[in-house]
Amino acid sequence: MTGGPRPRRYGYLGPEGTFTDAALGLALAARGEDGATGAPTAERVPAASVDAALAAVRAGGLDAAVVPMENSVEGGVPATLDGLAGGDPLVVVAEVLVPVSFVLAVRPGTRREDVRVVSTHSHAQAQCRGWLAEHLPDAGYTPSTSTAAAAAGLAPDAPAPSYEAALCARVAAERYGLEVLAEDVGDTAGAVTRFVVVSRPTPPPPRTGADRTTVIAFQPADHPGMLLGLLEEFSSRGVNLTRIESRPTGDALGRYCFAIDAEGHVEDARVAEALLGLHRVCAQVRFLGSYPRADAVPVVVRPGTADDDFAAARGWLDAVRAGRPPAGSHAGDGPVARTTS
Amino acid sequence: MTGGPRPRRYGYLGPEGTFTDAALGLALAARGEDGATGAPTAERVPAASVDAALAAVRAGGLDAAVVPMENSVEGGVPATLDGLAGGDPLVVVAEVLVPVSFVLAVRPGTRREDVRVVSTHSHAQAQCRGWLAEHLPDAGYTPSTSTAAAAAGLAPDAPAPSYEAALCARVAAERYGLEVLAEDVGDTAGAVTRFVVVSRPTPPPPRTGADRTTVIAFQPADHPGMLLGLLEEFSSRGVNLTRIESRPTGDALGRYCFAIDAEGHVEDARVAEALLGLHRVCAQVRFLGSYPRADAVPVVVRPGTADDDFAAARGWLDAVRAGRPPAGSHAGDGPVARTTS
Amino acid sequence: MTGGPRPRRYGYLGPEGTFTDAALGLALAARGEDGATGAPTAERVPAASVDAALAAVRAGGLDAAVVPMENSVEGGVPATLDGLAGGDPLVVVAEVLVPVSFVLAVRPGTRREDVRVVSTHSHAQAQCRGWLAEHLPDAGYTPSTSTAAAAAGLAPDAPAPSYEAALCARVAAERYGLEVLAEDVGDTAGAVTRFVVVSRPTPPPPRTGADRTTVIAFQPADHPGMLLGLLEEFSSRGVNLTRIESRPTGDALGRYCFAIDAEGHVEDARVAEALLGLHRVCAQVRFLGSYPRADAVPVVVRPGTADDDFAAARGWLDAVRAGRPPAGSHAGDGPVARTTS
Amino acid sequence: MTGGPRPRRYGYLGPEGTFTDAALGLALAARGEDGATGAPTAERVPAASVDAALAAVRAGGLDAAVVPMENSVEGGVPATLDGLAGGDPLVVVAEVLVPVSFVLAVRPGTRREDVRVVSTHSHAQAQCRGWLAEHLPDAGYTPSTSTAAAAAGLAPDAPAPSYEAALCARVAAERYGLEVLAEDVGDTAGAVTRFVVVSRPTPPPPRTGADRTTVIAFQPADHPGMLLGLLEEFSSRGVNLTRIESRPTGDALGRYCFAIDAEGHVEDARVAEALLGLHRVCAQVRFLGSYPRADAVPVVVRPGTADDDFAAARGWLDAVRAGRPPAGSHAGDGPVARTTS
Repeated sequence: MTGGPRPRRYGYLGPEGTFTDAALGLALAARGEDGATGAPTAERVPAASVDAALAAVRAGGLDAAVVPMENSVEGGVPATLDGLAGGDPLVVVAEVLVPVSFVLAVRPGTRREDVRVVSTHSHAQAQCRGWLAEHLPDAGYTPSTSTAAAAAGLAPDAPAPSYEAALCARVAAERYGLEVLAEDVGDTAGAVTRFVVVSRPTPPPPRTGADRTTVIAFQPADHPGMLLGLLEEFSSRGVNLTRIESRPTGDALGRYCFAIDAEGHVEDARVAEALLGLHRVCAQVRFLGSYPRADAVPVVVRPGTADDDFAAARGWLDAVRAGRPPAGSHAGDGPVARTTS
Repeated sequence: MTGGPRPRRYGYLGPEGTFTDAALGLALAARGEDGATGAPTAERVPAASVDAALAAVRAGGLDAAVVPMENSVEGGVPATLDGLAGGDPLVVVAEVLVPVSFVLAVRPGTRREDVRVVSTHSHAQAQCRGWLAEHLPDAGYTPSTSTAAAAAGLAPDAPAPSYEAALCARVAAERYGLEVLAEDVGDTAGAVTRFVVVSRPTPPPPRTGADRTTVIAFQPADHPGMLLGLLEEFSSRGVNLTRIESRPTGDALGRYCFAIDAEGHVEDARVAEALLGLHRVCAQVRFLGSYPRADAVPVVVRPGTADDDFAAARGWLDAVRAGRPPAGSHAGDGPVARTTS
Repeated sequence: MTGGPRPRRYGYLGPEGTFTDAALGLALAARGEDGATGAPTAERVPAASVDAALAAVRAGGLDAAVVPMENSVEGGVPATLDGLAGGDPLVVVAEVLVPVSFVLAVRPGTRREDVRVVSTHSHAQAQCRGWLAEHLPDAGYTPSTSTAAAAAGLAPDAPAPSYEAALCARVAAERYGLEVLAEDVGDTAGAVTRFVVVSRPTPPPPRTGADRTTVIAFQPADHPGMLLGLLEEFSSRGVNLTRIESRPTGDALGRYCFAIDAEGHVEDARVAEALLGLHRVCAQVRFLGSYPRADAVPVVVRPGTADDDFAAARGWLDAVRAGRPPAGSHAGDGPVARTTS
Repeated sequence: MTGGPRPRRYGYLGPEGTFTDAALGLALAARGEDGATGAPTAERVPAASVDAALAAVRAGGLDAAVVPMENSVEGGVPATLDGLAGGDPLVVVAEVLVPVSFVLAVRPGTRREDVRVVSTHSHAQAQCRGWLAEHLPDAGYTPSTSTAAAAAGLAPDAPAPSYEAALCARVAAERYGLEVLAEDVGDTAGAVTRFVVVSRPTPPPPRTGADRTTVIAFQPADHPGMLLGLLEEFSSRGVNLTRIESRPTGDALGRYCFAIDAEGHVEDARVAEALLGLHRVCAQVRFLGSYPRADAVPVVVRPGTADDDFAAARGWLDAVRAGRPPAGSHAGDGPVARTTS
């Protein structure tokens, strides 16, 4: 190819047909890299694990990777949190929400009464326990490394599997030529998983007014009560948190770090000030990015915490440090003018 | 049956040889139900899952169950937290700490260079990723439903397995007649798992001065900033938290409950007052028990938060409500005696 | 006297014609002791100082005293605060608001251009400085022990005074036969003083829903940051403060006590709990009473802080301590019912 | 004099012999303007009131004024607080501590049994009530406009006074040729008054490490709970307060401003950040200066709040905003290095 930019390489948690694969599709469409526009179509590279995908981004073999961050039923994804908390820094540049709905997929011709063992990823099994107890009470369970892997094992060209059905995404059933015996499997209606696109450090995308900022804050060894102080750094600047997730640091029971999602962008003064405060009270803070919210919910700015309020305070401080009367401080301007002499 | 009480029935996450099985052994020894004393030897009942064990306790088929609560590397165990957060109430009556150290177990005669696929539970695999990458870089991985199940699959009488080695507890290798190729496998030295003994509701065991109290607090739908207020209920009474773990409630992204371990016993006035405050600010609080800490670390009582301080405050309040001068309030008693007339 | 109860004796800061005298009149009318009803008419006893009035109540010579608590311009009245903070306990049983408006009073026949010196109490002079600078710029000032004493000094039968005009209450000008040269003197329109009726300790008057509770909290010597913790005891129970006034304890610069007015009654659970917390964090707390607000503004109860909420929390705590499942804690009742086994 | 700088003009609360006069002497000695060195000897200008002194500084007729700020027994001095809170801005550039000890002064030859009336300023009388009750129980009291004025009224050349004794500073007795009948009069041993030197706005004196910063913070009309938030702005940056004094704003009962003395200098990052926060949560903040503490007690800097900590946080923020990996964030540097791929 002459001229144009090379297509970017995106990793995802494979194999084809995972929910992560679906998330990547949505992310590429949103970024105009799905071939629908004139821009180069991105290359999609499956990875064996979240760790492998992140490692390839760090090493430069990939431009970015899509990994699951949080599930509305199961909570934060430990492999992603730990993978971003340690190692060379990476940042989140975008997020994608994917509804999580499973299908029960079988080789064409298999009937429900033929299903003696079901396979899927252990997290998916956890989300479908109630359904399985009700609809396949006698079926056994064998774990797989991913929902798509369970589907792939039933593909016509796969070796004889040890199970008859897979719980997977609809796209996986289609990809591997399977028949769907049941749809909307899952104990929690409306379950959704939040995926993020991560890259090597880069300036955050511009503010949109509906942004999210993610950090990981590490508790000092000698200050177990840090969480309260940490929360106050945000609340005192009027910054709402949309999520806080504790994770052990692995050193010992009782040592934690906290994955925090805050409303707003690091270019917002109130968010920047909160992060500065956080940096002073934590053993370490890892910045994981500011990026537009997938749900586009605009931030509500509390009185006294807009950029203008921070700028006004700074202007006032500069004046008093310089020995100048601050603007608006002459007699009669203020709320108090009791003295008369 | 003639004479003595019937032996109690304890459930555990089976099959035999799991870390939970080891935890049950420690718990029974601590409670004198292991046959070493004259007391009836408890019956040990394996369960297929945490859910199954808890359900059997609720239904009355078991007197108690031992389940994993928290791991120093992987954090809280979602199945246990969710199993205790919902359903009929259960309480924790004891805790046990078990060091987590894996062995690489094989059928006798298998050499390390013969190992092409390793099996274990996905959480164990997560804790051994580094070791595997270094020592068995070319080996594949197949998940199992438990570390003991991986070992059991290699037992001489098991059908031909699809893997050559299991990562499991030493006790499982012994139980299933396997040979140990490597010990102390695991990326984090000193890893430990905390197990708890749960039963149907019962008065807490007596105070020891080194107790722990566990609750789950549910965030009100309309008050996302509750976490800060929740922490203040404890800190304002001088109650330290040893652990706080967020869990999604499953309703939607951004809705959480918090599993909280606090120092002290519900019979301590400061803990009781903190729980009363918690009850008022939360949508629901589930009390999961007060019980002795396995590490026997005594609680440090901050000035002003001992039972006597609460009793003194109550005595004072009763006096002022009744229109009686409180004890010690006469002229000259207090820190201030400036007036002279 | 045969039959009915003896009339009660009320002290006030004299002489006749002070603002305190006016406050006493309002207080007696509100209590039905002003002779307008069939009840015995109270006896009014002037006192030379706040200290003298409080001492007479303590000694039993008076049943109660009316003293100034707070002025909207000048703030708390130190003599009253200090007089109530030390000595044998006294309690506030009622409050009265009196608008503070001065007149310029002279002997009949004196013209404004004849006024060379004005006399009044130093606090009144402070509130009229602007008016004096504008209307009597050349007049001198001589202090008096009260506004009424300044008026009394101009009475026809008084010895020749060293001043020609008094700033005092209208009632004082009338009492002493003076002529009023100017009305509504004072730099702050709408100034008001809050007076309180104090007695020896007695059970508080019943709750009205529009009550105020007053306490004085003494800072521990070794804990200068107490104020923040003190405020949190109130805010965490949803109790609003209508006033907080620092006073030095007189021991050294930097040692304070705090006079606090809170919304609500000591029989309100949230107020009682806040006071219990206060008692634990302070060196001493002096309860100065719960009584109806003169302005009758009803208290707004924040969700989770009504008496029922405290009672519900207590019922829940009793249940968990006793090992009983709390009300409403069965499966499906709570906000979380995710587990299915 | 030709060439040299003109002597500076300092106002003080007169007449000669007041405690303020004594404070001015100490301030001039500390500043080398008392004639003891070669520098020009400052001119001392008595003023009739705090208001008058402040007005003359504002108008340019004085270079500075010495006024009483706070007394260890009586608390803040309302005239000074109100005079600095309103009107054109002024700043404190130095402070002086003066022990407050009174003498009972009379015309030579007067014996104690001749004293029928005592005169002094009402604040001095308040501090000597106990002594007077014990030693001159039958003496009357007549107020004066200052302690020195009471002494001056007894001077040989003064007109016949209406009292026989004055409670005043020793220096006043000497100045007016009086005889001292009693020393160390006063109910509180060790009483001390803090005076401040105020000037028109000027850059603060350099940091000494033992500085004080004074501000007045005005409560927003619609946010009565501001005090808690205000205190948190300081505590969250590790800034200790040495004094907080509430003052009504004069608008209505329940509206306050707060005079605050904080440890540290506005050039300290933690103080500057606290003031910035204060500016955002208050209706108005009036900066009254940063200046060396008279007691030279050095500030204790809490971990995480030194200037270096603020600079490190800023450097980190700049890096993450620019998309650069922050210093020290490479794999293995941090407290967490669990991932291995």
